[in-house]
Amino acid sequence: MFESAELGHKLSKAEYAEIEPVLRTELLETQLDLLDKKDFAAVVLINGIDGAGRGETVNLLNEWMDPRHIEVHAFDRPTDEERERPFLWRFWRALPPRGKIGILFNNWYSEPLGDRAFGRIKKARLDQRLSEFNRFEAMLAAEGVVLVKFWFHLSRDGQKKRLKALEANPATRWRVRASDRLVYDHYDRYRATAEHVLRRTSTAHSPWVIVDGSDPQYRAVFVGRTLLHRLQAHLEHVRKGYRARLVSAPLVAAADRRTLLNALALDQPMERKAYEAQREALQGRLSLALRRRGFTQRSLVLVFEGMDAAGKGGAIRRVTQALDTRQYHVIPIAAPSDEERAQPYLWRFWRRLPRRGRVAIFDRSWYGRVLVERVEGFCTEADWMRAYAEINDFEDQLVSHGALVVKFWLSISADEQLRRFKAREEAAFKRYKITPDDWRNREKWPLYEPAVCDMIDRTSTENAPWTLVEADNKYFARLKILRTIVETVERSLKA
Amino acid sequence: MFESAELGHKLSKAEYAEIEPVLRTELLETQLDLLDKKDFAAVVLINGIDGAGRGETVNLLNEWMDPRHIEVHAFDRPTDEERERPFLWRFWRALPPRGKIGILFNNWYSEPLGDRAFGRIKKARLDQRLSEFNRFEAMLAAEGVVLVKFWFHLSRDGQKKRLKALEANPATRWRVRASDRLVYDHYDRYRATAEHVLRRTSTAHSPWVIVDGSDPQYRAVFVGRTLLHRLQAHLEHVRKGYRARLVSAPLVAAADRRTLLNALALDQPMERKAYEAQREALQGRLSLALRRRGFTQRSLVLVFEGMDAAGKGGAIRRVTQALDTRQYHVIPIAAPSDEERAQPYLWRFWRRLPRRGRVAIFDRSWYGRVLVERVEGFCTEADWMRAYAEINDFEDQLVSHGALVVKFWLSISADEQLRRFKAREEAAFKRYKITPDDWRNREKWPLYEPAVCDMIDRTSTENAPWTLVEADNKYFARLKILRTIVETVERSLKA
Repeated sequence: MFESAELGHKLSKAEYAEIEPVLRTELLETQLDLLDKKDFAAVVLINGIDGAGRGETVNLLNEWMDPRHIEVHAFDRPTDEERERPFLWRFWRALPPRGKIGILFNNWYSEPLGDRAFGRIKKARLDQRLSEFNRFEAMLAAEGVVLVKFWFHLSRDGQKKRLKALEANPATRWRVRASDRLVYDHYDRYRATAEHVLRRTSTAHSPWVIVDGSDPQYRAVFVGRTLLHRLQAHLEHVRKGYRARLVSAPLVAAADRRTLLNALALDQPMERKAYEAQREALQGRLSLALRRRGFTQRSLVLVFEGMDAAGKGGAIRRVTQALDTRQYHVIPIAAPSDEERAQPYLWRFWRRLPRRGRVAIFDRSWYGRVLVERVEGFCTEADWMRAYAEINDFEDQLVSHGALVVKFWLSISADEQLRRFKAREEAAFKRYKITPDDWRNREKWPLYEPAVCDMIDRTSTENAPWTLVEADNKYFARLKILRTIVETVERSLKA
Repeated sequence: MFESAELGHKLSKAEYAEIEPVLRTELLETQLDLLDKKDFAAVVLINGIDGAGRGETVNLLNEWMDPRHIEVHAFDRPTDEERERPFLWRFWRALPPRGKIGILFNNWYSEPLGDRAFGRIKKARLDQRLSEFNRFEAMLAAEGVVLVKFWFHLSRDGQKKRLKALEANPATRWRVRASDRLVYDHYDRYRATAEHVLRRTSTAHSPWVIVDGSDPQYRAVFVGRTLLHRLQAHLEHVRKGYRARLVSAPLVAAADRRTLLNALALDQPMERKAYEAQREALQGRLSLALRRRGFTQRSLVLVFEGMDAAGKGGAIRRVTQALDTRQYHVIPIAAPSDEERAQPYLWRFWRRLPRRGRVAIFDRSWYGRVLVERVEGFCTEADWMRAYAEINDFEDQLVSHGALVVKFWLSISADEQLRRFKAREEAAFKRYKITPDDWRNREKWPLYEPAVCDMIDRTSTENAPWTLVEADNKYFARLKILRTIVETVERSLKA
């Protein structure tokens, strides 16, 4: 969930100076357009980690747009008036009318999130609240309220640095409040709870947008653009004569050019000799682990995704070499069969789930929905937007039933892919592996990149995390994959 | 929730003999049309009280339609195969492909419902499951699966009669299984849990349909028609070029002519003298109850709905006579103001919620959404269909915050309304109370009747029940209203 937001996105002052005037003009024009048409209201939720720049960003939005038509509400402890009504009353009071923008600081999410992170309520109670919020927000969306939900994020290190800097300076020491320290001390628990909350309440019509809060220029531009695109998409929708309801939200790319994929150093060193020794050791450990008694109560689901020729097949073979043939199935996923097409898209994966003590290896997977189907337009934006939540639900069910879900994105550079394509064309026994489709897909590389990043941000979870594999060097990639699997299995048998 | 289903609906054998051949022909034709077009799959969920005719009805559906294209799955204890996969796996396995109809007996609802009714899981855990099911079903609907959810109901008396009859006959005694008796012994708890489950999982795209199971002819026709209309609505939707997704489900009127409203004896006896004595006594009790210390932690929300001239105003005055003017607000609801129109429809009710220790009296209410807005077409079918769940959520929040919600439908006959309209036109001081709109609304009476019955079935809950008031005799009506309020308040102060 927070992968992209922990990359340390940055915009230089010069870049910012170039972007800002254009962005604020567009925002202001769009705001006035909304005010004029009065087709819907916009509600901006501001949540996140203390010190990630929430206040500064709200001030900026007020500066960029006409503040007379923005209503900012900050919620702290409820007043007497508020405490005497149901929980949501104070938020209903703060709803802006159609045509206006409301900014709600510390809204309905704050209290249950804090309560759970600090152990004051149980998980089931939190989930009950979240399902109330989902129903509430679905109702708002159906009634023509556009909800833009921002989570301002800071990594553990980022927060540490910030608190240290503030404390070191006597002039700013007062800004480090006790509750900041409390959140910091509980950072991991708070982050894990936030991840669960965000995942459970991200919907196609109102997804969470995670903002890397570490750089002021970057976060300002990212928030501004996200808001702009949401408003524009809805205005456009209405202009076409549709009702301004349940429109799926466009995702906005990073404002700098830094992504999860290009932040990877793809060509990691690894010599064949060292590789072979380590591979055998890892295969041995894997084989042993999977034969332990504890594993009979578990199952293992491996997912391999990556661009063509990224080395999925080779890596899978290095895994299966360690396994008893009766124990695993490799499930190659291509275009669905007729029978599969007559069912919901997850059906073909449900039917291949392994029994206890078994391993299912998916060579491509249900992530096709948010990769190839998104890129090729085989499904609508609303379809793949809702797929993130559906896939998270699906994997939650696997994990809560005891399955281990390990997911790999094998990342290669475009150059390396080209080299491998050519090598395949030259070697007769590999020629079957290269088709015109592969060349066609290669041209869509720029469309796959954001799809991959969105996929990882929206479906990498505590329970079923993605592992990004630097795959220009096959040996390195295979070892990283084997090691990740071995460690996951061993850890689960200890627990 | 179960109001209509406990009326004791009936169809005579002669009526059945007339309806059945037409209905089965239409069902068969519609089934073949679906099979031909393959636009969506239909999944029929069969749940309910033992002995309410589930098995018999499924057999009948198989007889009426082509059984080769119906897949019936009955779920009992999970098999080994099933237990080794996540909970939903066995239901995924049973999904029919597009073009076909699947009938699922004892499906995902059975286990959590039973677990909760017999105290094996907590409320929060049940709600967690229900929100999983809501997400699962929303996904199915978005993927083009039409879900038709039937709850076969029997009243407590109905179940008692059935078990007695079976036990009395040595030839059928074997049919009374131990689990039947268990459900019967826990009938009230089971019914309350079922109500909660059904309410929480009724959505605009997949609402529960409650079947009065007491009469075999009636339930067969009702189930057949409901299925027919759902399938036809979806096929029609696709014919118009839309995707077969998230279509809101049409509600089907009772197959006999018996409704909640016409089952009432509207003209109840009550003389003025007796009325006045009782009224004063009740007003005294109400006044005392609302001044008790316990009420300072409560609030009271009264809802009055009814056709024009049903006596809402008069009844409200008899309530307010008992109250301190500082303690209550009467909130007359007419067409929304501009400010209100710029907000979600529930907004204007949220803003009028009473503080603790206060009384809010709504003369017409949020139920306008499913009454006048439905009848006059001020909102779409999808809008008022989702309103039932939204209103239930709204009232849940009130009740769980300590408010008492008491709702009255004042029911008068068309004749009595006419008499009152004429009397108003004749009495100068009452003439302001009658407008051309009133005459226009009167013509829509036949449209209001089903709207009222659906409203009561879908929003009468344990926490916020509807009271139907026989209102042809004003004295009787006012006393029933006062008594209901007094008893509700007194009960809450005892608890």
